[in-house]
Amino acid sequence: MLAVDSRADRRYVITLSCPDTTGIVARISTFLAEAGGWIVEAGYHSDPDTNWFFTRQVVRADSLSFDADELRARFAAVAAELGAEASWTVTDTGRPKRAVLLVSKEPHCLHDLLGRVSAGELPVRLDAVIGNHDGLADIVRAHGVAFHHLPFPEPGSGREAKGAAFAQLGELVGAREPDAIVLARFMQILPPNLCRAWAGRALNIHHSFLPSFVGARPYHQAYARGVKLIGATCHYVTENLDAGPIIEQDVIRVDHGDTVADMVRRGRDIERLVLSRGLRWHVEDRVLVHGNKTVVFR
Amino acid sequence: MLAVDSRADRRYVITLSCPDTTGIVARISTFLAEAGGWIVEAGYHSDPDTNWFFTRQVVRADSLSFDADELRARFAAVAAELGAEASWTVTDTGRPKRAVLLVSKEPHCLHDLLGRVSAGELPVRLDAVIGNHDGLADIVRAHGVAFHHLPFPEPGSGREAKGAAFAQLGELVGAREPDAIVLARFMQILPPNLCRAWAGRALNIHHSFLPSFVGARPYHQAYARGVKLIGATCHYVTENLDAGPIIEQDVIRVDHGDTVADMVRRGRDIERLVLSRGLRWHVEDRVLVHGNKTVVFR
Amino acid sequence: MLAVDSRADRRYVITLSCPDTTGIVARISTFLAEAGGWIVEAGYHSDPDTNWFFTRQVVRADSLSFDADELRARFAAVAAELGAEASWTVTDTGRPKRAVLLVSKEPHCLHDLLGRVSAGELPVRLDAVIGNHDGLADIVRAHGVAFHHLPFPEPGSGREAKGAAFAQLGELVGAREPDAIVLARFMQILPPNLCRAWAGRALNIHHSFLPSFVGARPYHQAYARGVKLIGATCHYVTENLDAGPIIEQDVIRVDHGDTVADMVRRGRDIERLVLSRGLRWHVEDRVLVHGNKTVVFR
Amino acid sequence: MLAVDSRADRRYVITLSCPDTTGIVARISTFLAEAGGWIVEAGYHSDPDTNWFFTRQVVRADSLSFDADELRARFAAVAAELGAEASWTVTDTGRPKRAVLLVSKEPHCLHDLLGRVSAGELPVRLDAVIGNHDGLADIVRAHGVAFHHLPFPEPGSGREAKGAAFAQLGELVGAREPDAIVLARFMQILPPNLCRAWAGRALNIHHSFLPSFVGARPYHQAYARGVKLIGATCHYVTENLDAGPIIEQDVIRVDHGDTVADMVRRGRDIERLVLSRGLRWHVEDRVLVHGNKTVVFR
Repeated sequence: MLAVDSRADRRYVITLSCPDTTGIVARISTFLAEAGGWIVEAGYHSDPDTNWFFTRQVVRADSLSFDADELRARFAAVAAELGAEASWTVTDTGRPKRAVLLVSKEPHCLHDLLGRVSAGELPVRLDAVIGNHDGLADIVRAHGVAFHHLPFPEPGSGREAKGAAFAQLGELVGAREPDAIVLARFMQILPPNLCRAWAGRALNIHHSFLPSFVGARPYHQAYARGVKLIGATCHYVTENLDAGPIIEQDVIRVDHGDTVADMVRRGRDIERLVLSRGLRWHVEDRVLVHGNKTVVFR
Repeated sequence: MLAVDSRADRRYVITLSCPDTTGIVARISTFLAEAGGWIVEAGYHSDPDTNWFFTRQVVRADSLSFDADELRARFAAVAAELGAEASWTVTDTGRPKRAVLLVSKEPHCLHDLLGRVSAGELPVRLDAVIGNHDGLADIVRAHGVAFHHLPFPEPGSGREAKGAAFAQLGELVGAREPDAIVLARFMQILPPNLCRAWAGRALNIHHSFLPSFVGARPYHQAYARGVKLIGATCHYVTENLDAGPIIEQDVIRVDHGDTVADMVRRGRDIERLVLSRGLRWHVEDRVLVHGNKTVVFR
Repeated sequence: MLAVDSRADRRYVITLSCPDTTGIVARISTFLAEAGGWIVEAGYHSDPDTNWFFTRQVVRADSLSFDADELRARFAAVAAELGAEASWTVTDTGRPKRAVLLVSKEPHCLHDLLGRVSAGELPVRLDAVIGNHDGLADIVRAHGVAFHHLPFPEPGSGREAKGAAFAQLGELVGAREPDAIVLARFMQILPPNLCRAWAGRALNIHHSFLPSFVGARPYHQAYARGVKLIGATCHYVTENLDAGPIIEQDVIRVDHGDTVADMVRRGRDIERLVLSRGLRWHVEDRVLVHGNKTVVFR
Repeated sequence: MLAVDSRADRRYVITLSCPDTTGIVARISTFLAEAGGWIVEAGYHSDPDTNWFFTRQVVRADSLSFDADELRARFAAVAAELGAEASWTVTDTGRPKRAVLLVSKEPHCLHDLLGRVSAGELPVRLDAVIGNHDGLADIVRAHGVAFHHLPFPEPGSGREAKGAAFAQLGELVGAREPDAIVLARFMQILPPNLCRAWAGRALNIHHSFLPSFVGARPYHQAYARGVKLIGATCHYVTENLDAGPIIEQDVIRVDHGDTVADMVRRGRDIERLVLSRGLRWHVEDRVLVHGNKTVVFR
């Protein structure tokens, strides 16, 4: 895998999904070859079940004689030949992706993402952190990132108060038009309208190996069942709780000596890793959603 | 962990579980010290939730001046002091554990266990393999192990025919009084009476990371959900399908390129490992069941 | 990854490596598209250090109107355009790959490979097993595979006796022209002439995570150093001991409680997995060697 | 494993290593039982090679009628009976362990440790961070931790200048008497006198799976060798470079697509995890050093 972010060189990243047929690769690669495009990374996948084709291509910007807008215009013509169902993107690594983080009290994922961005490990700019508590404001600001305190009503405060908070959240996020909205242990269930508005851009980290232990207190559920591994899942948020397309998962071994508190602590290591990987792949345009599943070109 | 099987030396293995209180370790270790017992391995666990205590001790047989029966008699007196709920075992590695394997058509777990036993990796003697198909008979017999073909009626043949087959199975197994009954991809759901008769001795390998994907065709379920890891679970059989105490679990990474057939093939690597670990720990008396969970002294 | 072996469908597998330049993908994919070729799997890699290009393409045989020989002839013309240094293969999954296994006394890798081939997990035909001891002959023959006992002289018997044994080994293997020669814990260091004759076809399993613990008794070396993980390495055999191109590696956790005997036993699980993966990738033409490194299209 | 830090309850942690003999467990557990000590966690290990015994016991402070000093005095008498070579500690979780971090320019381990301490995940107080560059000063201070900028002379500035810097480092650290001195990618080789002064307290993170790739630029070495996994090692610092007792190691999979820059980035995930685990175990008195190896009671 190419570390797009670790190179001075600018890249254009093309993704495409469309019904599968003979000749797609030839069509795209001939188009790029004729333009002089130097492909530095290429992934292909044919799904035999749905008969769908997926690709991701990374091209050196300096190998083309035109810019990203022109590439988009020309590629649109290629994609059009591949049918009305073809879905595609062309992005430019010269324009950094931007993310907004939503947090609550749990700090570990936030600390991890701030550290990674600050160390130049994640090719993303943090536009804002929005928290329903303000305990993490200082450290966010020390990293030079804006923090917005948006208190949420207590459980049981009525639908209206909560609706108002979500409306404000929708405006705060919407004004920034971020490429990624990261629920970094946000602990609030998004209303359907935000799920729809943020479709394909909102990433959640759930602290279990889904589909096991959906919903609240998954470590307690895992402890009660006596599983020997605990996990975490990064997935796109949809209207169905913890049921969106899975981007990444991982697990860690536990044993009979681990209390729920131990699982909570140890699970954080997996939550951090899984969320940061999922976010990286998302902003590097490595994740293509198809139905309720993902193709991840790592 | 001590490879009990890889030593000429004979060991006595003591396990105990009882309500927790101060002084249990002192009581047991003083008893052993006074008898001259050389402890080569010792595991302890206190469960804060249920306030229960668990231990497993391995003693060099040649360090005691008496035999396993006498150790049992003397340890019974110690255990009696620890309350009526105390549950304990004393086993002698000089008397090999014996197992019966139940198989169907899927050969991979059987091949693996035959190979391990033949290579001296697993401290267990295979008394018999019982299969509801006879395709694996030859290779079992080539390993010098008895094979019994016990055909099961086709699905839909009526409860009676199935009941007769299970009755015969119960007799075949019961006559051997095995320490372990291993469902090595047996693909039949045991009736309640066998679950009870074999309680704590029947190990199943389920081809998913439980509690995800209970029941039939777990790899198909995993494929449909788009998980990024698939797993296997070794558990004691109880009357609740795939819900018994978990002994061991593990997972392997899959991606969008893996078809169901790929998952089936790749999952076998995990099934083999998880079942052989679970069986090893069971016959080495490393697994103590408490409620629906296990303490595994690895 | 596509399980080529788990499908009735016949495939042609094309591999190519050559100096990198713009347009290679276009050239190959256009060639295939014009022939009606249905690509079911495609991998590409550009190595920025050596400026070399690698690809592996899997085409449905029934999508072409000609056979493998004709494909070879036509592809040769394409490859010729890519320069004199281009190296390529076209294989046909309708003609099963054949392997010869070399063994000594250690049975675990042999048992594992026999079980996998017998279960249809590995797309390879075992032509023969050659052992310098005969203890494993019976189980090999029970699997319907020829076993040749080729005793090797005792250490210290002089160069000549050993040379004669290796000459005989070379003849036995050479007569079969196998696609893979698997040193399944063979425990003999091949002479340079066999290393050269079998270049790119001889796979060894070394029981350490190379480059740590080259040579004899790697588990003893690992124990002495106090490492917390032990591993195994599958690599192509070259004249430099344990230094050939690495195909696959994996590790397993150990701790202070593991004796050397425990490491030997537990390491076998990793040796089995790593060797069987390496062999699978080799016979599926997934491994392209470049210098002393490999590109593995999994 | 019990999360000592996640409980309000105070614990006394006893560690002991001594020549092995019958009756040690009985002696210690009887001593504790007679004092009313409630053991919440106990680990034992007998090393058959060196015939040495190791234990770690965790006792509820409120179960004893005396304090840590008195426990130390009484335990000293018990340990004295176990021979002159017995080595032991008694620590009190009510007195937090203190650490000093040494850093250079690489920020990822520092960010990770700051985040963990700030989130209450690591039972340690950070007394100071000492850096030979000042780029990380602001974020350290934002976490409320003192930062000392101690510039080191350029390579080639002569032995004297470097000696002066190390002398100052020795004074800065020595004045704090920390329980742990953490070289969080410090990138300087400690002089022998500091290695000796900090023996058993200085933890280094090396960015390879030792003993592979000792010394400079281990990711470059790993890339050149074509390994399929890269790793990191946390070890105690000794006078022999990268050769001290190993506390923890872990690895992550790489493939032919990973450049050195990718390995550097991806390896950070393992460095963070391995260092934070090693530090946790060290400050929880889980690590007992014996010769050049460790016993880790996890």
